[in-house]
Order: sequence, then structure tokens, then C-alpha cells
Amino acid sequence: MSPDPAPLRQAVILAVGSELLTPHKIDTNSLFLTEQLNAHGIVVRYKLAVSDDEDDIATAIRDAASRADLVVTTGGLGPTDDDVTRAAVARAFGLTLQEDAGVVSSIRSRFASRGFEMPDINRRQALIPEGAAILSNPRGTAPGLWMDRGDVVCLLLPGPPRELCPMFEEVLSARIVGRTAGHRLFRRVLTIVGRTESHVEELTQPIYSQWRSPGAVIETTILASLGQLELHLSTRSADPDQAARLLDDATGALADVLGNSLVSKDGESLEVVVGRLLTDCGRRIALAESCTGGLATSRLTDVPGSSAYVLAGWVVYSNEAKVALGVDAVLIAQHGAVSEPVASAMAVQACRRTGADYGLGVTGIAGPGGGSAEKPVGTVWFGLAGVDGPLRTRTFRFTGERDRVKLQASQAALDMLRRELQRV
Amino acid sequence: MSPDPAPLRQAVILAVGSELLTPHKIDTNSLFLTEQLNAHGIVVRYKLAVSDDEDDIATAIRDAASRADLVVTTGGLGPTDDDVTRAAVARAFGLTLQEDAGVVSSIRSRFASRGFEMPDINRRQALIPEGAAILSNPRGTAPGLWMDRGDVVCLLLPGPPRELCPMFEEVLSARIVGRTAGHRLFRRVLTIVGRTESHVEELTQPIYSQWRSPGAVIETTILASLGQLELHLSTRSADPDQAARLLDDATGALADVLGNSLVSKDGESLEVVVGRLLTDCGRRIALAESCTGGLATSRLTDVPGSSAYVLAGWVVYSNEAKVALGVDAVLIAQHGAVSEPVASAMAVQACRRTGADYGLGVTGIAGPGGGSAEKPVGTVWFGLAGVDGPLRTRTFRFTGERDRVKLQASQAALDMLRRELQRV
Repeated sequence: MSPDPAPLRQAVILAVGSELLTPHKIDTNSLFLTEQLNAHGIVVRYKLAVSDDEDDIATAIRDAASRADLVVTTGGLGPTDDDVTRAAVARAFGLTLQEDAGVVSSIRSRFASRGFEMPDINRRQALIPEGAAILSNPRGTAPGLWMDRGDVVCLLLPGPPRELCPMFEEVLSARIVGRTAGHRLFRRVLTIVGRTESHVEELTQPIYSQWRSPGAVIETTILASLGQLELHLSTRSADPDQAARLLDDATGALADVLGNSLVSKDGESLEVVVGRLLTDCGRRIALAESCTGGLATSRLTDVPGSSAYVLAGWVVYSNEAKVALGVDAVLIAQHGAVSEPVASAMAVQACRRTGADYGLGVTGIAGPGGGSAEKPVGTVWFGLAGVDGPLRTRTFRFTGERDRVKLQASQAALDMLRRELQRV
Repeated sequence: MSPDPAPLRQAVILAVGSELLTPHKIDTNSLFLTEQLNAHGIVVRYKLAVSDDEDDIATAIRDAASRADLVVTTGGLGPTDDDVTRAAVARAFGLTLQEDAGVVSSIRSRFASRGFEMPDINRRQALIPEGAAILSNPRGTAPGLWMDRGDVVCLLLPGPPRELCPMFEEVLSARIVGRTAGHRLFRRVLTIVGRTESHVEELTQPIYSQWRSPGAVIETTILASLGQLELHLSTRSADPDQAARLLDDATGALADVLGNSLVSKDGESLEVVVGRLLTDCGRRIALAESCTGGLATSRLTDVPGSSAYVLAGWVVYSNEAKVALGVDAVLIAQHGAVSEPVASAMAVQACRRTGADYGLGVTGIAGPGGGSAEKPVGTVWFGLAGVDGPLRTRTFRFTGERDRVKLQASQAALDMLRRELQRV
């Protein structure tokens, strides 16, 4: 009986391709691979992007093999002269490449099924280092390779995500899961809107400290993006039920202190949560937007099925358009287009003209022009109305460039609706 | 007289931070750095992301120093225990760290100017390896470091982009430009809409081949994103005028074959180009969107100053909303909401109701539901109207998920307007 192979604990991800060393392309495959590897308890030691240079790739593979249990390469498996990952791995381990008749014939049938003859150049893709196992690629001509070298496994994957992702999922369940150290990483993502990062830290810190006790280790990370925070909780465990209980408890404790700033316990976006709340209570919405230029309506309609609850939107970019919607011209003259009464009137008109249950109005100064001492760039007024008239208003002063003001304002508008719907 | 220092030709970018090895964060600083380095003729040999582990960082710096002239690290210069880049670089080169009184006092005044006392922990940021030059950081407490080791320069930059970018621009002009090999990279970006990648290849290939002649080397790359292609031309030269002439000629030759598919010769987005065309001819636009949900209007209003030419937009998501806009209910009943006559009527109504010079109508099936054999998901009709009524219509069948259909449809809508405006 041969001994059990050593567990895979640490990986290096090696992205191959000269385009990854230009200002225009970035390796994103590694994010997908990291998520999958982490889920099975394998951490990423480092990530490297190298050019299509055989020497550089071979050096990188040798270095990685001396420092990790699993080396994953992406890219460089195509049929052209630039595709040298196969040759580089053979050189790194001192192996020869041999044409595999099975691979040639499968590439040939792939071409044949589309009515083409296989170009001779594609034979390169059938060159296999001795001892490598072939991973079939239903979505492309480049097979993947699995090379178990005893103390290290080297996995060669194609670069295009639509080929890489299914191939990696397959090899993960077939060959990697059985070789992990037995524990997996379990994760929850809490979406938070309407609080600053430091405020969330302050609220949640006392709870984190409880998890510092031995046997109950939850790691936390806060990620801030525009108008939203994500709180990532993760725990490593060999027992899925125990991990779920631990994360449920932690999420529950965090939900208590976060109150209605908590948008979602499983990473859903604000527009998805608002959509579900509208669906659940059978309500419908209409929007009148000025400075956001349709962005809030567009985000709501990003959600499949949103036509059931989004009745209509107006982008009333000019005063004339606001008046045409039904906002009183005198109101605009008295208070200005960016004002509480106008935001409220926009919401009321959106509601009335469509028979929607809610109307949402947004008016502000996205910049860079149009600001004043009293109403600087970034000032935005929000109005929410129901069938009986105005419900509430809010104002914010956002910072940043025009696109950042638009995005933050659309976020605040949707969040105002969410908070209202959660009161229903 | 000391000899001129060796020119900097090859760089390695080393991103430090454990968060860069999670599924949630990616190093994007390297794109900015690469663009700037390339512009001065310095190529990036490889890019590496490592954790906050002193050993790993020191090893990575040593490896990089043996393979490049310039090693740029980003991150790990903060005041906490996790910030070990300074210690790692000192270890890599066998140097000691010494507290720099000037740095301590400048960090202290930074805190004082905000009414705070400097926490003791920030003294770490004043630990400087012997011989390093200090790069001031007006936007943060972490100074950068420039270490000229003779055969290699090691540049330590802070991680946050708003600190890193100005510091790098400063060090580039002060210390790097004078040490480049004398040639720079000059670049042009052509934006193309309405053609497939293979069609563009076919059109442009005969022109590329002219550039293969010695002395006139232009490198080309096509980048495809949703609904748009970018053709990047670059040339390396010591003579800016010669490079400009070469790129002008190439761009001109490409413009001839690309015809009105060419949106911009300098990488401008479609909405920026449409905005300029509208401004130039003093025309104004109103939109009526169904499946795009406001995205086309939102994109137009991403451009500063767009309130001068975007009058209004309607998101007419329901049939009722289309009728309220003024589309004949009989037309909808006869042809369906997703049809040529309805797209055209939407455009006409948007135009009429605002007095705009142009009206744009978009109606389609974004999916995943709502498709039929006759009108599958992805079918979108576009209508363009002028003051005298309908001008033209188009239809497309887009592939992909809901958000991809929305984006491609907004692109096609704006491009329809662009082509019309270019005829004016």
C-alpha cells in the first residue's frame, strides 16, 4: 500500500501572459481560484504574473515548487509560439514533452464538429510532459495538466475564464478535495449601508473580542466600497454544522448592534434586497431623478424580475422637465431645483402619475460645476412619497468626482426606500 | 567625476499585503505604475503579490533585485505590526534600520496640525534603512523610500493609491526620468463601436503589415470589452516628434478603413464623444428607455456639463408608462411592447414632450424571463427621432446575462445617436 499523499495546504498562483504586464490587463482568475482554494482550507502563499518567456516561467515554477504544495498556472496553453507554459514546466522539472495521440484526436474532432480541419499549429497543444494527467477542456482546445511530483503538485490551467472555471471546479472535486488537510473555510458576508467604517469598527469591536477565545476563531475583514461596507466573517473548521452554528451566532450578534444598517447577511446587493422587500409586500415604485441621471432606476432594473415592481422613472435633468413632471415652477423658483421641497414634490409626482405605492425623488449637484457656497457640489436632497403624499426627506453632502457623487446618491436613494420597506 | 549610473530598463512590481491574497482584493496600483514606467521605456519583468510576512517579502526583494534594475514595492509602510516592508528591505540588503529624527518630527506635526498627539506606534514609520533617501508623503504619514544600491534601485511606496500616485509621479520626474535609456513609449488608443474583433482584425491587418518595416515599429493590441473595442498603438522612440508623426500616420490609415466605426482616436468613451458632438452642433436630446432601465441616460449624464444637452429621460418599464408617455396603446397591442413601431413612437414622444432636437427610444427583452421564439431574450429595438418625426430604427439580438444585455443595448443606443450626429 502506498502512503497517503501529503495534504495540500499552501498554493502559489502563477498567471502567465505578457498582456498581464501591460497597463491594460489584470489577472482576475486568481480571485476565483483563491476563493475556491480557501474554501477547502488551502491558503495562497503568493501570486505572480510573468510574461510569455520560457525562462521566466520555468524559474517561477521552480521557485514556487520549493515554497508551496500546489502550484497553479493559468494561461500560455494556446497553440501559438507565445504559448510556452508546457515547455516551461517540462524544463523546470527536467521532463521531456511528448505528443499525446489521444489529445491530438480530441482536438481534431473538436474542429471537425464545426466543419473545420485542425490547423497543424494546434498539435502543440498535445505536447504533454511525461507523467502528466490530462484534464479535458469541453470549452476549448487546450487541455489542462495535473502533474503530481510527490512533494508538490503542479496544475496547468488555460487562461480564458470560461475554460478555466469549469476545469478547475472539476479538478478540485476530483483531485484536490481528497488531499486537503480536512478543514474548510466557511464564510459570511454582511452588507452594511449608512455607516462609516470607523463607526462599524466601534460597534462591532466588542463582539469580535468574544471570538478571540480558543476554539471559536472567526476572522473578520471590513471592505469599504463607495456607499457600502462589507463585513467578511470566516472560520476554518472540519465540521460544517459547527461552523454554521458559530457563524450564525456571530452574524446574529452583529445584526443586533448594526440594526437597520445591515442590508444583507449573505452579501446581497442593495438593489436585490430592495427588490425582494418590494416583492414580499407587493408594492411598486416609481422614481424621479435629477443628478443621478437614471442611475437609481437602472440599478433597480438590474435585478431579474424587476419589471414587476418598477413602474416608471423620470430623468428630469432640466427645470422644464421637472415642471413637465408636475413640480410647481414657483417651488423651483423659491427654493431652487436642489432643495427639500423639490425632492419631495418629485417623489409625489412620480407616485401620482403612475399609481405606484412609493415615489422616490433625487435632486442634487453632481459637479464639477453648479455648486455654490450654500449648496456645494455633492449636496443631494432625497424625497420619499407614498400614496397619501410625502413620507420623508433626507439630505447628504457627498464628496468626490461626479461619478462618485452619482453612485453614492443612488445608493442613498435605494437605502431610503429599503429602510421604509423594512418598517412595513 | 563619478560614472553615470546605469539606465533603468526593467522593473519588478512587488505588492505587499495579506489582503491581496484573499478572493476580495486585487492589486491595481501596478496598472498605474506600469503605465508610467512604460511611458518612460521601462518594461515590467514580472509582478508579485505577497503577504505581510517579513521573510517572504525579503526573499521577494532579493529575487527581484537579481533580475531587474528597479524594484518597486507598494504597501506595508503603515505604523502597525503588520507593516514590515521597511524591515524586510533592510534584511534583504543586510542593512540596519535607524529612526530618522526629521521623519518623526514631520509625522508629529502632521498629527499636531489636526489637533492630535502622535501615537507612539507611528515612530515605526520613521525607521529608515541606512542610505535610503526619504520621499515625503503629503497625503499620509508613511514616507516613501528610494534606495540606490548601484546595480539596482529599490523604491518603497505606500499602498493607498491617493498617497502612492502623487509620490510616484514626483519620484518619476525627479529621479527616474534622468536614468532611463533615453527612449519613451508613445501610445494612442482608438475606440471602435459596431464591429466584431475579427472584422476589425481583417480590416486593419493589411495596414499593420506596413509597420513591420525596420525603423517604423508600432505595436498593436486589440482589447475587447462589452460593446466596444480598443485598438492600442504604441511605439518606442527617443524623438517625440517622430513618434507623433508615426502614430498620426498610423491612426489616419486606420481611420480610413474603420470609417464611422471609429468613435475616438484618443480613447474617449462613447458618452464623451456623443456629448461633444451634441455640444458642437448645439443640439439637445431626450430619451425613453424600457429594457435599459435608465442606463443610457445615466451614462450620458456621467459626463460633466451634460445638463446642457440632456433634457430629460423616461424609464417606461410598464405598458402603462409607455402609454402615459404618449405611445398609442393600440400600437403596443398590435406589435408588442418590444417592436419597431413602439421604439420609434417612444423616440418621437421623448422628442415632442421636451422640445429636444433628438429623441431616442429603446425597448427590448433583457431577460432572463420574457423571451419567446419570435423575440428571444436579448432582442432590442432602437428608434431615433428628430423634430419632424421618426428618423430611423435598428434592432439587435444581444447575448449574455441581463446586465450584459443592458450594457450592450445602452452602447448601441448611444452609438446610433453618434452616427446620426456625425452626419450633421
